[in-house]
Amino acid sequence: MSSHRVLIIGGGPAGLTAARHVSDLGFHATLIEKQAQLGGTPIASHYAALTHGFRDAEDAFRDLIHQVTDDKQIDVRLNSRVVGCEGRVGNFNVHVANGAGAETLDAGAIIVATGFEHFDPARETQIYNYYTYPDVITLADMELMLKSKTVTRRSNGALPERVCFIQCVGSRDRQIGNEYCSKVCCGVASKQAIEIKQLVPTAKLFIFYIDMRMYGYWENEIYWPAQEKYKVNYIKGIVTEVIQKGDKLLVRGEDTTMGRPMEVTMDLVVLSVGMEPSAGTKEIAHALQLKQNKYGFIEVPHESLDPTVTSTPGIFVAGAAAGPKDLDDTMSMAGLAALRAMAAVRGAN
Amino acid sequence: MSSHRVLIIGGGPAGLTAARHVSDLGFHATLIEKQAQLGGTPIASHYAALTHGFRDAEDAFRDLIHQVTDDKQIDVRLNSRVVGCEGRVGNFNVHVANGAGAETLDAGAIIVATGFEHFDPARETQIYNYYTYPDVITLADMELMLKSKTVTRRSNGALPERVCFIQCVGSRDRQIGNEYCSKVCCGVASKQAIEIKQLVPTAKLFIFYIDMRMYGYWENEIYWPAQEKYKVNYIKGIVTEVIQKGDKLLVRGEDTTMGRPMEVTMDLVVLSVGMEPSAGTKEIAHALQLKQNKYGFIEVPHESLDPTVTSTPGIFVAGAAAGPKDLDDTMSMAGLAALRAMAAVRGAN
Repeated sequence: MSSHRVLIIGGGPAGLTAARHVSDLGFHATLIEKQAQLGGTPIASHYAALTHGFRDAEDAFRDLIHQVTDDKQIDVRLNSRVVGCEGRVGNFNVHVANGAGAETLDAGAIIVATGFEHFDPARETQIYNYYTYPDVITLADMELMLKSKTVTRRSNGALPERVCFIQCVGSRDRQIGNEYCSKVCCGVASKQAIEIKQLVPTAKLFIFYIDMRMYGYWENEIYWPAQEKYKVNYIKGIVTEVIQKGDKLLVRGEDTTMGRPMEVTMDLVVLSVGMEPSAGTKEIAHALQLKQNKYGFIEVPHESLDPTVTSTPGIFVAGAAAGPKDLDDTMSMAGLAALRAMAAVRGAN
Repeated sequence: MSSHRVLIIGGGPAGLTAARHVSDLGFHATLIEKQAQLGGTPIASHYAALTHGFRDAEDAFRDLIHQVTDDKQIDVRLNSRVVGCEGRVGNFNVHVANGAGAETLDAGAIIVATGFEHFDPARETQIYNYYTYPDVITLADMELMLKSKTVTRRSNGALPERVCFIQCVGSRDRQIGNEYCSKVCCGVASKQAIEIKQLVPTAKLFIFYIDMRMYGYWENEIYWPAQEKYKVNYIKGIVTEVIQKGDKLLVRGEDTTMGRPMEVTMDLVVLSVGMEPSAGTKEIAHALQLKQNKYGFIEVPHESLDPTVTSTPGIFVAGAAAGPKDLDDTMSMAGLAALRAMAAVRGAN
């Protein structure tokens, strides 16, 4: 007997959006989330403004959460994990564990929306000293500061006079095994630089980069204003170490445009950490026996032409579980994955 | 009386994909294309390999075309133009002109998939001499050469020894009014450089760029192999003029990494022209009274969160009609737009 349920794994932006779309077309959706709350990384990591458009992230994603929790056609299971799966497209049996025990849910199709996690700079600690110096922080730490509208030095609570971002921490790096570009960090760092300047107008902002990947409208909507209106200094350069000097941080490297060594003092250093597959993405690949690419993200065999298809018919992927994605990508993929899941349920695929 | 038809305007990758998705969920789709053939820019401009994955573009899009033309639920109208529209979501009356005259079609929702056109380098002719020198060509001209597996100098039919690409022609340029980044040109140029090297192994390849925007997996799948396997030379620099010198082209500018003037001779110069809204996109915005952004692309009010919604309820946009998009974006947006159009037809939105 075939099932008309679409099972969605992950309650972040991709999963919430996919669930809503499934319901909008009259299909039944079950959303499985392993945490006690919905919203995924943007809510759990206290994101401030969205990179594109600067809308308040909590406000935007709370709306999305309510659309899902208010919808009687969507069955939301918190504190739940998918631990196994049998069957095939049209008729999957999915084993879900939760506090109360375990149950098996039927589903005609499955959408994996288990997201990414931020690269842990401990793996490059000898260069950047993230766990040694309190004023070396990550993009995620800065989101939390921006969310609380208080950007201060962790070491002494003072307003920072000079703040820099170091791009490509954990991305474009063969040594740590992440050759890919994490796609969003140039945009996020630039957005944060603008927000810092709005909160601390006296601060001087610097972004050390290899290439500024401000594609499409990020160029005119974020990159140009960052330079022209907010006077953010973009320096093409490579940072080789960050060390403490008195109560300041000394950033050493090479300014590749000027072709000379660079040594600058900073009050706050923000590491633009990239995306890696979340623990949930790796777990679910195992539980559903989905192929992963060499980085551990869900493998998408026909990426450009069919960006949500996985190695298993009837199982689709949306958002950063498939690799580095921005919010536009995630929302579009959630729509496509929802649609393809429903078509699979109908037997069209 | 409400209509269950989704009307899709534009028979390129976005429109074809949207039509197929609409049909897959059992809704009726009508596809309007002003040309005599389907396939849009990739077919009309003879694209060679897809940038991501290197699959043959004609092969990929012919498949898509056949899926649509073989589907009895999809009504395809070639040589047809939308000239006006009344009504509202659930009940649009769309006026379509064709050779035989005109007719009015009902539609519950509309998807605009009218695409982009390549920037015309005539607007920067004094610098690059596109219309003066036969060996100054565009990315689109190079696609045609690659498609025919014959990369030669137009001036004398010889194999080129030195080929360069000049990035950001018509993009990131306030003077011509296009401040945005066209998103795909870094990837397309790198892909073409690889294809040229495969066809003419003795050729030396150069790409003059501001930032290489090889986001996500383009970094590890295209940019690294281009450098390591195909020895493409990437030079961060600004080209200020291209002039004829004997039977060669002299490219003058500044190598910004080395901080010195640059003067190099080339056999072929490829201008990496960006994206502008197509004539069809501007026409349709007028016919449907849709808001356009300052560049003439269809305005998307809530871009990151809702990338296919236009200024008019019930009218959605997919692909490069909304701005610079890559193929992944286009295919995901086509899915989302199809889904939202069907939800609108059902009255959910």
